[in-house]
Amino acid sequence: MYRTHTCGQLRIDHCNETVTLSGWIQRSRDLGGMTFMDLRDRYGITQLVFNMETNADLCKKARKLGREYVIQINGVVAERSNKNKNIPTGDIEILVDEIIVLNASEVPPFTIEDETDGGEELRMKYRYLDLRRNVMKNNLILRHRLARETRKYLDQNDFIEVETPVLIKSTPEGARDFVVPSRMNSGQFYALPQSPQTFKQLLMIGGYDRYFQLVKCFRDEDFRADRQPEFTQIDCEMAFVEKQDVMNMFEGLVKHLFNGVLGFDMEGEFPQITYTEAMEKYGNDKPDMRFGMLIHELTRMAQGKGFKVFDSVEYIGGIRVEGYANYTRKQLDELTAFVQKPQIGAKGLVYVKCNEDGSFKSSVDKFFGPDDLHQWAEALNAQKGDLLLILAGEKRQTLHALSELRLEMGNRLGLRDKDKFAPLWVKDFPLLEYDAETNRYYAMHHPFTSPVQEDLDYFESDPAKMRAEAYDMVINGVEIGGGSIRIHNRETQQKMLKALGFSDDEASEQFGFLMEAFKFGAPPHGGIAFGFDRIAAMFAGEESIREVIAFPKNNAGRDIMIDSPANISEVQLKELNLKLSQ
Amino acid sequence: MYRTHTCGQLRIDHCNETVTLSGWIQRSRDLGGMTFMDLRDRYGITQLVFNMETNADLCKKARKLGREYVIQINGVVAERSNKNKNIPTGDIEILVDEIIVLNASEVPPFTIEDETDGGEELRMKYRYLDLRRNVMKNNLILRHRLARETRKYLDQNDFIEVETPVLIKSTPEGARDFVVPSRMNSGQFYALPQSPQTFKQLLMIGGYDRYFQLVKCFRDEDFRADRQPEFTQIDCEMAFVEKQDVMNMFEGLVKHLFNGVLGFDMEGEFPQITYTEAMEKYGNDKPDMRFGMLIHELTRMAQGKGFKVFDSVEYIGGIRVEGYANYTRKQLDELTAFVQKPQIGAKGLVYVKCNEDGSFKSSVDKFFGPDDLHQWAEALNAQKGDLLLILAGEKRQTLHALSELRLEMGNRLGLRDKDKFAPLWVKDFPLLEYDAETNRYYAMHHPFTSPVQEDLDYFESDPAKMRAEAYDMVINGVEIGGGSIRIHNRETQQKMLKALGFSDDEASEQFGFLMEAFKFGAPPHGGIAFGFDRIAAMFAGEESIREVIAFPKNNAGRDIMIDSPANISEVQLKELNLKLSQ
Repeated sequence: MYRTHTCGQLRIDHCNETVTLSGWIQRSRDLGGMTFMDLRDRYGITQLVFNMETNADLCKKARKLGREYVIQINGVVAERSNKNKNIPTGDIEILVDEIIVLNASEVPPFTIEDETDGGEELRMKYRYLDLRRNVMKNNLILRHRLARETRKYLDQNDFIEVETPVLIKSTPEGARDFVVPSRMNSGQFYALPQSPQTFKQLLMIGGYDRYFQLVKCFRDEDFRADRQPEFTQIDCEMAFVEKQDVMNMFEGLVKHLFNGVLGFDMEGEFPQITYTEAMEKYGNDKPDMRFGMLIHELTRMAQGKGFKVFDSVEYIGGIRVEGYANYTRKQLDELTAFVQKPQIGAKGLVYVKCNEDGSFKSSVDKFFGPDDLHQWAEALNAQKGDLLLILAGEKRQTLHALSELRLEMGNRLGLRDKDKFAPLWVKDFPLLEYDAETNRYYAMHHPFTSPVQEDLDYFESDPAKMRAEAYDMVINGVEIGGGSIRIHNRETQQKMLKALGFSDDEASEQFGFLMEAFKFGAPPHGGIAFGFDRIAAMFAGEESIREVIAFPKNNAGRDIMIDSPANISEVQLKELNLKLSQ
Repeated sequence: MYRTHTCGQLRIDHCNETVTLSGWIQRSRDLGGMTFMDLRDRYGITQLVFNMETNADLCKKARKLGREYVIQINGVVAERSNKNKNIPTGDIEILVDEIIVLNASEVPPFTIEDETDGGEELRMKYRYLDLRRNVMKNNLILRHRLARETRKYLDQNDFIEVETPVLIKSTPEGARDFVVPSRMNSGQFYALPQSPQTFKQLLMIGGYDRYFQLVKCFRDEDFRADRQPEFTQIDCEMAFVEKQDVMNMFEGLVKHLFNGVLGFDMEGEFPQITYTEAMEKYGNDKPDMRFGMLIHELTRMAQGKGFKVFDSVEYIGGIRVEGYANYTRKQLDELTAFVQKPQIGAKGLVYVKCNEDGSFKSSVDKFFGPDDLHQWAEALNAQKGDLLLILAGEKRQTLHALSELRLEMGNRLGLRDKDKFAPLWVKDFPLLEYDAETNRYYAMHHPFTSPVQEDLDYFESDPAKMRAEAYDMVINGVEIGGGSIRIHNRETQQKMLKALGFSDDEASEQFGFLMEAFKFGAPPHGGIAFGFDRIAAMFAGEESIREVIAFPKNNAGRDIMIDSPANISEVQLKELNLKLSQ
């Protein structure tokens, strides 16, 4: 037997018991006559004591053992004279009688501490060592608890978890598929699912009513920051529901997770705003609602005063920064540089200071008198002492820049508190987005999203006008989930695919099985999918989803620990009837 | 709102309530003045009533609706005059006021009934319709409950579920990998995991102590009956454990599942037998323990009597069929034909009837007198009235044939009761198996299985003699799980890979990361993996795992519903830098 207790278990009540513990040596302190050692396992840390006077051989043996050695010890639990209130086992220590070295360790390439000296690359290569750190351990345990509570809530609400296949069929719509050559069906390929979308719809057609799955999904994208080629979704679908039914159910799930995992009570219903409102007030369809600082349009009142920059643009808008009229030249220059960054793309920044004495000081004093600026201040609900920041340009682009500026000011002013959670639903998205480059419409969510019933006639007359029965859940500026009522009617699905540029043949080749299924009594249905990695990162207070994934890949899609992807043998290629080009 | 209640919910207490239901039309009975309709959803069936006298238009409308139409109805709950005690809603019916057709249905290609007229192929093509059948629905709900109870037990025992990657690296050992070409790392491939074996070991090295995962695994095999290219495992690993610790924990899991899901109490500890004993007594390393009929060796006592067939063989063994001395010539001929089938491979069958009068009648009376036969009968513990069945030949092959014969007799005698469960552990497997064709050893379990400590010296002297610290759980003749204590020592792992014919370079290329990890304090560890599909099939009383998988593939690895695998576009191939050969 390797242990009678774990390293997190012993308390003052265990004194005088003989125990066996196993674990890793976290650190060792040689104090001349005594050696103290911290023994670590998943459950905690227990202090071991070796005494030169009572057992010199054992003490010498202990002193030779380095960090991360795996040892088993026998000893007696004793009360500490010098108690440590910071750890649950801090009242006791073990007077060790025997050490068995279970495995040695070389000096690890970085320190196994909360604040490690290991860089990203080294931590990834020796991921199993990184995983020993408390931070990573707590993140993975948190992830486990999130999964457990997700399943508990959904099970209690009559959802059943059904596994859908991983080896499916490639569809050209959406992101790029990973494909898997089939040896038994030479020249043909499976694809890995980007989501189980069509399968969960088939489950609804199969009468399953309430389905969910925590499921791995795959996207062969050029990696952007914090994307992984494989990621996990909480994938859900319900039959005989309307939009609000789905939203209620999953608002409930998220509240359950916050309460059950973080002990955080989310009171009241989540606010709901339309896509249009989100774009106009926050410049963004996933607004961070932890703070106000809403965008207001100033186009009409700021044009026609001879300021050419304003007069020539489609849109002028601003935000009000409460109490920051005293921002310095330097600070304003920084902000100007910020909005001019390529990924934000504003040409320049106009500011107006609403001074405490009622006067205004702006960067456009030449063109706008106090009355003009007063009018702007009123439009922005500004008070004395506030700072107005104004951008102008093409509407969509300027709203994006205002959104970024708003978030930057939120950061600067400390308004984006990690311990505060501000959820909302965004709804009434456009069904389709027109792409000028390819001269076609794309589904804003996916091709199975139902249009709002009263917009159905626009399929022929004005597709861009159609709204989708879709909803995104956003918390703190992060889209954690999105879903929709689906099309369950064959004719509507055909119209949708036609609007997306599918020929009848393409539609039937790609989605024939779904169109066929619609013939046999498809019920109304809808659902949602949550980004589970994203939720776990948010709950853990981590910026990157890599910190909540046990074995993530780097930004080039490589697992540098196992060195994958890698070459495969000629025999394997031949069996698959494949050749590498070039 | 599509419904106020489900179709399984209404009881006599609901009488006079106005309700809304939605579901599928299961069947419709037109009785002239009245039409009765069964409305079905996942939760049950509710009877709808339409009356020609009170509402002729509605009744006529109802009569036009076919099977599997999706409808929504409003009506009033009424007590049935003719109650149906077979269904929970059998006391009531709905007097319908309004029908809304939510979706029409063509006549389904097979009947949606417990006993369907659909063949395998049709059921697979229209899987979503097959899934509407009670049998399939109950199987998938059972599977959901098995997953839930598995997680509950493991969570309560401090296991944490950790997701391991699906895109990993190809290793030539074991079955064939499915591979995934990488677009971003041209010419290189990921592989899909055959199991998360090395990752769970890394988690132990990372200090996670108790890990589990319900996880999809993949094997590109030439499909045998009832194999799927993707399948699900309950994958588990523990640190600081010995063999018996792991066996206790997972015996507990299986008992919990039987109790929690089937309400079946498995009392006492599971029997444990060695591989050698299993082979000698049952001819099989996964014996069906629901019945006895053990194999006994007769080699020595049956040789040297002039019967050349016996005298020339390595092994002679028999089983005793209690009370079947009256088996007819025809029945014995059938058995002879059975053992001569190529997959069983015996040359012939010798029988001995132990007659009620104390005499014997055998197919080898020419060579063996009553004393000889009496001796055999004693060796097999036979009584008057029993039948002895005896096979001879090469030992391994003959034991296999005896095992098959034993199972056949078990079937014929009704001894393999579906509602009885007889678990056991098989242990002390050989570590290595020698393959004459390739002239090398293969790992009987996998290359990470620990040898029994006292056998370690055989690595050099006699590898075939080494026993593994491995254990299989077998229930009713089906191996539902298997595992082992793993090697956690770098030198032992090197010896093992060497014994398997790996060069140092190959070992380091394939398993370098694991060998590297062993340098940094790997704890002793071991685990197990259960075939989740197999367990679900056993619990459901199904022969095939296809019946507990929502969307299975056929024996050629094809999903005939979505028609996958399929060709991919030239663009996709080009992006992956691949060409098809031929």
